[in-house]
Amino acid sequence: MTSPLDWSSIPPIVPVPGISGQTHQAERMTVIRYVYEPGSRFPNHSHVAEQVTVVLTGEIVFTIGGADVTVGAGQTIVIPSDVPHSARVAGTLTVETVNVLAPRREDPPKI
Amino acid sequence: MTSPLDWSSIPPIVPVPGISGQTHQAERMTVIRYVYEPGSRFPNHSHVAEQVTVVLTGEIVFTIGGADVTVGAGQTIVIPSDVPHSARVAGTLTVETVNVLAPRREDPPKI
Repeated sequence: MTSPLDWSSIPPIVPVPGISGQTHQAERMTVIRYVYEPGSRFPNHSHVAEQVTVVLTGEIVFTIGGADVTVGAGQTIVIPSDVPHSARVAGTLTVETVNVLAPRREDPPKI
Repeated sequence: MTSPLDWSSIPPIVPVPGISGQTHQAERMTVIRYVYEPGSRFPNHSHVAEQVTVVLTGEIVFTIGGADVTVGAGQTIVIPSDVPHSARVAGTLTVETVNVLAPRREDPPKI
């Protein structure tokens, strides 16, 4: 039976201190939940997959192709294929995001 | 410059009374924001695109392949390709979801 993704059952990876990522591979898309502690930052990287990020809590600043963009809880952003991007927490709240990527990333999320 | 999706700039369609949908076509994915008023329901339908739904507010019951599943704010569910599904609001809160579909839906969202 289909049910909501149960993140408590998916072991997290910790790509950098203060950030945890949990991955669910769907058929055509990869779904990754990230939790960023205040002060954490995800280094610049890129991937061929296009990325849709929905911010559930807190506020995060993405640097996308060199430009800063702030994304708050309830907002959604699209990061195009192959464009370098990094992320850092803005403010003092823990940030939770759900990232949806297509095509599926067959490599585990890493920097 | 990349920026968060500005839903206020995207005209809504109203597939059924009480539900509005706004569509952003990305390169590989279609992003649709739905707002469901309390009491509304989206009729049974299916599409070849796989669907990832993130619930931002409220609580919604999907009937997926005949089985009911409740999805609350902060939760994410994957609806497989070609599986018939419907949705109805649970409770008294307005429901907001962000749906991400791959491959892109070239037809406008409809029942």
